[in-house]
Amino acid sequence: MVSRSGTGASSQDESSKGKVGMGKYTVGLDIGGTKILGALLDPEGEVVGTVRRATVHGADGLVAGAAQAVRDVVASGGVELAALAGVGLGIPGIVDHRSGTVKHAVNLGVHDDELPLAELLSAELGGVPVVVENDLNVAAVGAAHVLERSAPGGEAREHEDLAFLALGTGLASGLVIDGQLRRGVSGAAGEIGHIPVDPLGPECTCGQRGCLERFASGKALEAAWPSRHGKPAPVELFEAARAGDEQAIVVKDRFAAATASAVRLLVLTTDVRHVVLGGGVAQLGTELLDAVQDALREQAKVSSFLGSLKLADRVQLAATHVPVAAVGAAVLGRRS
Amino acid sequence: MVSRSGTGASSQDESSKGKVGMGKYTVGLDIGGTKILGALLDPEGEVVGTVRRATVHGADGLVAGAAQAVRDVVASGGVELAALAGVGLGIPGIVDHRSGTVKHAVNLGVHDDELPLAELLSAELGGVPVVVENDLNVAAVGAAHVLERSAPGGEAREHEDLAFLALGTGLASGLVIDGQLRRGVSGAAGEIGHIPVDPLGPECTCGQRGCLERFASGKALEAAWPSRHGKPAPVELFEAARAGDEQAIVVKDRFAAATASAVRLLVLTTDVRHVVLGGGVAQLGTELLDAVQDALREQAKVSSFLGSLKLADRVQLAATHVPVAAVGAAVLGRRS
Repeated sequence: MVSRSGTGASSQDESSKGKVGMGKYTVGLDIGGTKILGALLDPEGEVVGTVRRATVHGADGLVAGAAQAVRDVVASGGVELAALAGVGLGIPGIVDHRSGTVKHAVNLGVHDDELPLAELLSAELGGVPVVVENDLNVAAVGAAHVLERSAPGGEAREHEDLAFLALGTGLASGLVIDGQLRRGVSGAAGEIGHIPVDPLGPECTCGQRGCLERFASGKALEAAWPSRHGKPAPVELFEAARAGDEQAIVVKDRFAAATASAVRLLVLTTDVRHVVLGGGVAQLGTELLDAVQDALREQAKVSSFLGSLKLADRVQLAATHVPVAAVGAAVLGRRS
Repeated sequence: MVSRSGTGASSQDESSKGKVGMGKYTVGLDIGGTKILGALLDPEGEVVGTVRRATVHGADGLVAGAAQAVRDVVASGGVELAALAGVGLGIPGIVDHRSGTVKHAVNLGVHDDELPLAELLSAELGGVPVVVENDLNVAAVGAAHVLERSAPGGEAREHEDLAFLALGTGLASGLVIDGQLRRGVSGAAGEIGHIPVDPLGPECTCGQRGCLERFASGKALEAAWPSRHGKPAPVELFEAARAGDEQAIVVKDRFAAATASAVRLLVLTTDVRHVVLGGGVAQLGTELLDAVQDALREQAKVSSFLGSLKLADRVQLAATHVPVAAVGAAVLGRRS
């Protein structure tokens, strides 16, 4: 549905030029535990405004803060609220995109009760349609949107195809399959963090043993290399490895290999064109990308079958020049 | 594209009733190492004829045998060859569905040279369009077609969503995602047999170690419980387990658990609605299904997250009242 709505919007623009523009701006918000990132998309899908605000926890604060972020980003783009065709929200927790509700977003102070976030925010914004989506799904949609717009020869890449692999505290992915967001029948598509990959591995909080998340995630990295100098654990680990600390090199290589396993797993099931690395750990940037690509090439050495899949070529870092998840939320907002 | 062509056909039937029928029959062939199974679909997608022939190896024999199978199944349905809108073939080996070629179908006597199977068969059949597809993909499409037609309240299930998990000599799956066949960008979607799940597991022919196929496949089962009485190894194993042989019970449980792991892996990546068990080992029938469902329930006991996915409810056996892969090939033949 993702690209389809994007495509739909642009073909509509062509067929009714001049009168559409005002109604075709959309805003997307990526609501996290500490900050809200916002993006304003113009009718052509270009990012024409961004905003960043601190998150206020609890239902009331969340709605008021989101409404203010929408107003701010609209103003930053020199557009009126009335020009918005829709607003999309990406949010952690259990999201029901059909009803626009969220629950168990513990980081945001939303607990067991279902919060009708779409309805509340829409009311706050004078009736602008609002859609709510899982944070990984908006990130995947945003990454696909950015890739589609940056691809040479645009047309051929109209339906992007990728997994957004989020190396956050945990490990999970969002999927855009041939231009369509893949939620799955129970919203569990991309939950690869809880696939066991080692029968003797450590117990996981999910109750299983040896889950992939226990090897390839921020939490796993921090357990193996606790932060000692006040910087994020991934930064300290990579610094130590760069300085030649042998133990750090071992931990780094293991982490890169585990992340490479996640890439391999995603491709051997869905065969997506790209695997986009995102989440907190991906802020390491090219140093992480290099390590993961090296690990993929190493794994491919033993298997011509793996080699034929050219896994290293499929991996890239999430774009940093735009807030990808907010952009994805805005793309989904077009559908509303 | 799968369901869309099915849906397209039926809406066309409605809009131009009476004149469509004759051109809308299709034939599908499932070409295996020992036999060719064929199915004739009528304009409504109903199976109105089937056929079974021995496979003749090598390029010439393959084309001649396939042509004869098409003629036979058309005749069995009381239809003329001229009534065919298209023919679909499902075949093992490396298939290029765009060019209609196949290579490395070693079981069929097709080796390194690319065989332009679609073109040759089409010429043999007087120009009927022919499409060629990977055997797992046609099985997945066929399983989806059967499920769509058997679902109560049809409309809601128009776009089936499943993985066809083939427990053959090896382990692999075909995917139909929201009614669309998922090939993947390099045709590797569903190749879960070569995902490593045990770092200390046995070496795999693919070059890696501890691949899922080494635990959940006909080959793995036969290695753990070699056939001793002239029956297929899976049959002997399950018989021995039923008779109370303790070692057989252990081997059977391990096999069921490994197959359950494959189901879990498919759902945690793609979150498909159904996982359909097929391939030679699935001929065990309900005894296999029961064992796999028990293993899934056992695994879910330790994890409420897994429990919430209701994995055991998603698993079923491939239909046996129709040749599923041949039906899927015929569905794809509609597109030609």
